[in-house]
Amino acid sequence: MATSCPSVDYWRWAPEIDIISNDHYLTASRLDAHVMLAMDADFTRSLAAGRPWVLMEHSPSAVNWQPRNIAKRPGELARNSMSHLARGADAIMFFQFRASRFGAEKFHSAMLPHAGRSSRVWNEVVELGELAGHLSELRGSRVEASVAVVWSTESFWAQELEWRPSVDLSHRERLEAFYSELWKLGVTVDFVHPGADLLGYHAVFAPALYLLDEASAANLRAYVEGGGVLAVSYFSGIVDEFDAVPAGPFPGRLREVLGLSIEEFQPLREGERVAVTGGSSGSVWTDEIVLDGAEPVEHYIDGPAAGLPAFTRNALGDGSAWYVSTKLDGSALGSFIDDVLTDAGLTVVPPPTGLERVIRVADDGTRFLVAINHAEADVVIDAVGTDLATGEATDAATLVPAGATRVIRLDG
Amino acid sequence: MATSCPSVDYWRWAPEIDIISNDHYLTASRLDAHVMLAMDADFTRSLAAGRPWVLMEHSPSAVNWQPRNIAKRPGELARNSMSHLARGADAIMFFQFRASRFGAEKFHSAMLPHAGRSSRVWNEVVELGELAGHLSELRGSRVEASVAVVWSTESFWAQELEWRPSVDLSHRERLEAFYSELWKLGVTVDFVHPGADLLGYHAVFAPALYLLDEASAANLRAYVEGGGVLAVSYFSGIVDEFDAVPAGPFPGRLREVLGLSIEEFQPLREGERVAVTGGSSGSVWTDEIVLDGAEPVEHYIDGPAAGLPAFTRNALGDGSAWYVSTKLDGSALGSFIDDVLTDAGLTVVPPPTGLERVIRVADDGTRFLVAINHAEADVVIDAVGTDLATGEATDAATLVPAGATRVIRLDG
Amino acid sequence: MATSCPSVDYWRWAPEIDIISNDHYLTASRLDAHVMLAMDADFTRSLAAGRPWVLMEHSPSAVNWQPRNIAKRPGELARNSMSHLARGADAIMFFQFRASRFGAEKFHSAMLPHAGRSSRVWNEVVELGELAGHLSELRGSRVEASVAVVWSTESFWAQELEWRPSVDLSHRERLEAFYSELWKLGVTVDFVHPGADLLGYHAVFAPALYLLDEASAANLRAYVEGGGVLAVSYFSGIVDEFDAVPAGPFPGRLREVLGLSIEEFQPLREGERVAVTGGSSGSVWTDEIVLDGAEPVEHYIDGPAAGLPAFTRNALGDGSAWYVSTKLDGSALGSFIDDVLTDAGLTVVPPPTGLERVIRVADDGTRFLVAINHAEADVVIDAVGTDLATGEATDAATLVPAGATRVIRLDG
Repeated sequence: MATSCPSVDYWRWAPEIDIISNDHYLTASRLDAHVMLAMDADFTRSLAAGRPWVLMEHSPSAVNWQPRNIAKRPGELARNSMSHLARGADAIMFFQFRASRFGAEKFHSAMLPHAGRSSRVWNEVVELGELAGHLSELRGSRVEASVAVVWSTESFWAQELEWRPSVDLSHRERLEAFYSELWKLGVTVDFVHPGADLLGYHAVFAPALYLLDEASAANLRAYVEGGGVLAVSYFSGIVDEFDAVPAGPFPGRLREVLGLSIEEFQPLREGERVAVTGGSSGSVWTDEIVLDGAEPVEHYIDGPAAGLPAFTRNALGDGSAWYVSTKLDGSALGSFIDDVLTDAGLTVVPPPTGLERVIRVADDGTRFLVAINHAEADVVIDAVGTDLATGEATDAATLVPAGATRVIRLDG
Repeated sequence: MATSCPSVDYWRWAPEIDIISNDHYLTASRLDAHVMLAMDADFTRSLAAGRPWVLMEHSPSAVNWQPRNIAKRPGELARNSMSHLARGADAIMFFQFRASRFGAEKFHSAMLPHAGRSSRVWNEVVELGELAGHLSELRGSRVEASVAVVWSTESFWAQELEWRPSVDLSHRERLEAFYSELWKLGVTVDFVHPGADLLGYHAVFAPALYLLDEASAANLRAYVEGGGVLAVSYFSGIVDEFDAVPAGPFPGRLREVLGLSIEEFQPLREGERVAVTGGSSGSVWTDEIVLDGAEPVEHYIDGPAAGLPAFTRNALGDGSAWYVSTKLDGSALGSFIDDVLTDAGLTVVPPPTGLERVIRVADDGTRFLVAINHAEADVVIDAVGTDLATGEATDAATLVPAGATRVIRLDG
Repeated sequence: MATSCPSVDYWRWAPEIDIISNDHYLTASRLDAHVMLAMDADFTRSLAAGRPWVLMEHSPSAVNWQPRNIAKRPGELARNSMSHLARGADAIMFFQFRASRFGAEKFHSAMLPHAGRSSRVWNEVVELGELAGHLSELRGSRVEASVAVVWSTESFWAQELEWRPSVDLSHRERLEAFYSELWKLGVTVDFVHPGADLLGYHAVFAPALYLLDEASAANLRAYVEGGGVLAVSYFSGIVDEFDAVPAGPFPGRLREVLGLSIEEFQPLREGERVAVTGGSSGSVWTDEIVLDGAEPVEHYIDGPAAGLPAFTRNALGDGSAWYVSTKLDGSALGSFIDDVLTDAGLTVVPPPTGLERVIRVADDGTRFLVAINHAEADVVIDAVGTDLATGEATDAATLVPAGATRVIRLDG
């Protein structure tokens, strides 16, 4: 299952089938391939409604169909596997057992490579098997997530139609951008359909929710009125489920929950950046926002919407709805997300760079921490419990060496 | 009507029809879109043989089919409209009245946008209608132009054929380059077929006149012998109307009027620049020129034609014919054009940057000045007369604020 | 005959035909077009098994089908012709006699251009004809070469198949790179099939010999054991003649002769460079090498194979086999090649920059030196004999002016 523009709506398909599985291959050219892996794993678990799922295929090392098929670094095979496990996979399988001497896949990596059983890859596979033997307690446990990201397959499709205001608009790009900053903040998320039950989540992010049907719009509003915190990015709420613009100004069915309307889209030129108060800057897009209840949070300093609001917050019922009208990147987006999470009462302490931390909870309440150190420096974590691989006790200063993984049954 | 490589020869079509009209849309990514608008308007008027014409469509703000559909800035809707009017349009219409909620054009701007009657666009449309109500005196007046630019549809077509000496050759690019520098110099031009009556023009520019039939060649020669000043750029006069090379050296039927022949084309490498005496430099093309009557004006300092003439002037009869054998850009081309205009007895005083000035003359001799300030600074113009919008007198120090337009009935 | 990926295996075709000929046109955008000309001429002669061959077509100046059809510089027509002659062509013909006034080739250069008999091109053709009249002694003589480069059409084909480890792998690119550095070192080479008789060569280079059948592998091994020096670049010996990977680690049938195996390919990212001990650096590719008899010559300083061997040398029988596991460019590759040639007992004195020197030997042992100065500075060469163009004696300090050619019958 690829998570670029999907050809079927998995939200509608998933409830009809018994086992949710994924084939996952890294995009080797991306230095953040491990973050994209986490995103795909979280999406797969979300399709499974939180139940355990099967990683049907991934590769021990390089594949053979990308432009440059970079080999996995030492330990990367195990880190990838454990990240899938952390995010709910209860079965993890490789393609392929033995490297083939013939045919189109002869340069695809294998558990047993052409170089044979003396190879690093083979030995890392054996080690991973040993580790897995110690992890049976995690089977059937659920991943803990208090934040949701809206993933709308229909928005994805509709936004790919011709005659959009700007070729720089991309549903997938915004999903990845929001997810990546949440990952860096150490926040585990579920993906949700915009019409899903949102009551359990402290905050919901809706990046590029272009298409919105009436029931989903009402669902988002009810979530906010009931005390939830919603954050929406530009080019959301633009059309209904028939690809028609709701009567009146943009953003149609989101006007009331966001407390604003848009007089005119102000897309930016190729490469253009606009400055925003508070020290950030945006690209691709701006809006001419007319406030109708919302409060401005930051303003544009220059560009076609100079002087107008850039980010807004609308208090509604017991909750609030945020809007960001430009493309923020990296730490600027991370800072916006952090402000939204704070508004939702979540205090985020970002983990050390490159450290992935996910909690799985068993039916009996036992909590398991999977900690994966993707960085090249050792880190120390606070995790009082038992290391499942060794059976030894861990404490408030537990070492996770560079490149290593720990699975810890937490005390209490 | 697009003015990139046209699919019909408008010169042959226009005399057969009653009303000449144009649909015009800015190329939003070009910062000089207002200059290209003027070029297209001048070409439309030239097809109409100077008679008034109809702007059948343009847009109030953004379109929906370009890569990034940039909205028009405040006042741009009026500046665009008045530039069409200045250059001979007696009717100016928008596409579309009301923004559609459905279908492929739902993101195309409209006089009445999705945002409704409180919007800036709607209010600017209303203001433009009020202004237009004061301008009925201009109806039927003619645009004043003393310089012509040769536009040959057949050259356009022939130059697009395969197997040209360089992919960097472009008929359209040279037409735009010459027009743009003439615009900056404040010189209003007509476009002409190379076989047209040229007697009324002080100077005629022929950029990239690749194909030339015998009658047109004789027409250009008669123009020069009769006292006209002609300026021709490289890769002109190369083939006849059957796409055949005339016998003997290039430039075939232009050899005698230019007073030179070309021993060998010397196209340049990608990105290569050659220095020319007098401080300019060229790209794309050079020729090995053998003088045969013409005088060298400037020489190549380096490149494959180092030491040979770069620009030449041939005195012939009562006039003269200039040749420029390399691609000049920006101010270097402007300077070349200025020298040609000076040779033609025209003294050019360039307007302030971004100021467009065009004169329309009524049948009774009344002269109207349309002044459009495209810049972000106010300018003062010398225009003694009456402002048609206000009915107030104007003088030798009349203000045209940044972004504004004036239409003045000139005294005397 | 183009020498990019060939559509037939000339090695199998050539023995069946009576006359080997080539059509050769410079790639005008390449500043090293004269080196590529030499490569193609050497390949043509190699197909003819060293016998004289026919240059059926080349151009007096520009062609008309490349993006920018750069004209030949003064003297280039003769230098190109004499380079073909130096490398074994006994007949040299131009396309075309007279420039056509009509059709697709009217901008293709000709011996008699549109500009007529006063032109430089025509006069250079006449001069070349006069020179050729003095060179009949060379007819039938053979080119002297003591180094061979393996050119495997089947490797070419097989490497173009889909699903390669990296899109940056290119058989042609490595052939050109090795040839270019040998040219700069002044070393004349024959091209050979990997199964050819190699006994006469001091050194054999095999760049990107991806596919290797069993007989050819045995042939290379026998060459080394018999005292030859072989140098192989990365991604060689990977598959057999059925595109299957030989059992065991890469490089399959080259493991024993190279004295090493490869545990895993480590292709590099786009633009990535790795440092190598000894001051060079590589791109595109590295291997995790496991030595099995070979000695390391240089090591990787960084990158995915950091600390492992980068270049190796295996002493085997009376000879040796070198391996280079990364893409070296320019002088770094020249230096590697020079080390291999030194190992083969060849002392190379590189000629002055841009000087091409080739020896042809007649059946009676008479030796002819063709010296072509492609540079813009005069050079002096040591050539005691007789200049065939003038009949005058030459000596140990014979001038070859910038851009000029000398053909000298050497004394003794």
